[in-house]
Amino acid sequence: MGVREGSNRLQLLSIASSVCHLPVMASRVALIQGASRGLGLEFCKHILKNKSPAAVIATCRNPDGATELRALADQHPGQVTVLRLDVSREEDIRGAADRVKESFGRLDLIVNSAAMLHPSGKGETSLREVTAQGIISTLTTNTVGPLVMAKYFAPLLQKGGGSFGQQPAEKAKQHSGIIVNITAKVGSIGDNGLGGWYSYRMSKAALNMATRNLSIELGRSRPKVVCVCLHPGTVNTDLSRPYHRNVPKEKLFSTEQSVSALMNIIETLSIEKTGKAYNWDGTELPW
Amino acid sequence: MGVREGSNRLQLLSIASSVCHLPVMASRVALIQGASRGLGLEFCKHILKNKSPAAVIATCRNPDGATELRALADQHPGQVTVLRLDVSREEDIRGAADRVKESFGRLDLIVNSAAMLHPSGKGETSLREVTAQGIISTLTTNTVGPLVMAKYFAPLLQKGGGSFGQQPAEKAKQHSGIIVNITAKVGSIGDNGLGGWYSYRMSKAALNMATRNLSIELGRSRPKVVCVCLHPGTVNTDLSRPYHRNVPKEKLFSTEQSVSALMNIIETLSIEKTGKAYNWDGTELPW
Repeated sequence: MGVREGSNRLQLLSIASSVCHLPVMASRVALIQGASRGLGLEFCKHILKNKSPAAVIATCRNPDGATELRALADQHPGQVTVLRLDVSREEDIRGAADRVKESFGRLDLIVNSAAMLHPSGKGETSLREVTAQGIISTLTTNTVGPLVMAKYFAPLLQKGGGSFGQQPAEKAKQHSGIIVNITAKVGSIGDNGLGGWYSYRMSKAALNMATRNLSIELGRSRPKVVCVCLHPGTVNTDLSRPYHRNVPKEKLFSTEQSVSALMNIIETLSIEKTGKAYNWDGTELPW
Repeated sequence: MGVREGSNRLQLLSIASSVCHLPVMASRVALIQGASRGLGLEFCKHILKNKSPAAVIATCRNPDGATELRALADQHPGQVTVLRLDVSREEDIRGAADRVKESFGRLDLIVNSAAMLHPSGKGETSLREVTAQGIISTLTTNTVGPLVMAKYFAPLLQKGGGSFGQQPAEKAKQHSGIIVNITAKVGSIGDNGLGGWYSYRMSKAALNMATRNLSIELGRSRPKVVCVCLHPGTVNTDLSRPYHRNVPKEKLFSTEQSVSALMNIIETLSIEKTGKAYNWDGTELPW
């Protein structure tokens, strides 16, 4: 199924290629970064199920190994474009943006979902476990990646149709697109009473700052792009798996529960709500 | 004057070597990281002038080029130890900590002062100027460096005499050492109304989180280490030089003014004040 492009690093998989590119049919175009599993995959499923007609651009590091995502694409012929994208490679991001521009010319929503707790899979429990390389790897994926995504995709979001969120009547306040960065409550400095998880906490605090900065720059522009951070709760994913035994059952969400709650928030977003971090229940998180 | 050590990367300059190591005479031992110029150099001057008897360990990337620092060391024979330390190299930091342990066995204060606005010398004014490499370089120096410093020097701070700050009467609440990370008001997410300077703002927000985390971990330990962020104001240094024309004269501090204000705050610190960010005037900064 895969069609190799000129670049070795960028591979556009034309799933059900004869009906792949029908952007005129899609009233919404959403890009989900980190879509091979967990929350990212669930965002794809949710949008395809509940927001049709929609085109979903699903990016992940290794499309060949993303069997669930490819199966989803097969179930929705012509609606899913899978792009190979390693968020730590700026040239991948630029290439993907060129590809989306060519095929769709615009975007209505980006969700930056990929994240790691730490390269080891476990957050640092003490300062002794902190290493420069561990922090930098975590920051590269969780923080730098989403910001560089914004750099290359903002022009496409400024051409979006604003089909996610709520539009106020006043035209000057309407938005053309939305950037959602998945943050975490443990990335709140003010809420931090336990410590530990140095790399992850720092990466999410810096992501919160990046999002705030984006909201200012892209809130000044016309058309406007809404930029928020969303905390998904503690979700049953690979990232949190080592810690599930410490989480009360009713507080451990399925990806369906979490994404459903987050999409409810996304559908209430407007420029008035930009530049903030929201919990899965819609309440605002402190910085 | 330089004495090459076994490692090529670590160089201990024994300034006036015959009287260099007299730790028994020093009632206070302070390490200033980024001491070749700007605020770091001024912290060295201030402590030597106002806090004697004190031993000052002054670290910088290139002692050979640090003429002002070396002149200061010459003026205070036996009180200043200059160590070569590139904060982006974990092995440098570990080597310096070994050296300080050997020579002094303890520390009372660390000030992490080195920072960059961006590798280009100018903060990003828009998203278009953001690059992955620029963010990572800035984070490496401004954020990862101070945290890795804490990793290797915390054990020495836990052996400190608590001779900086204020000690409460209750012994269980007394501290043995203090970590000061120089932050910036523009690193406050809540205070961010202007945007821009992506890399620098993100690096300082993440440093604030790191400091908060350190304060929790090192506030639990016995003896305790106080960890705070301090904002020096807009200071007449190389870092801010490209922006001086935009700063009202009365708001542009000399390094003497700024360090004098920050040392006044440091002398009021106790475990009750740990884990927060303070402005140069002692008021608390929002996260």
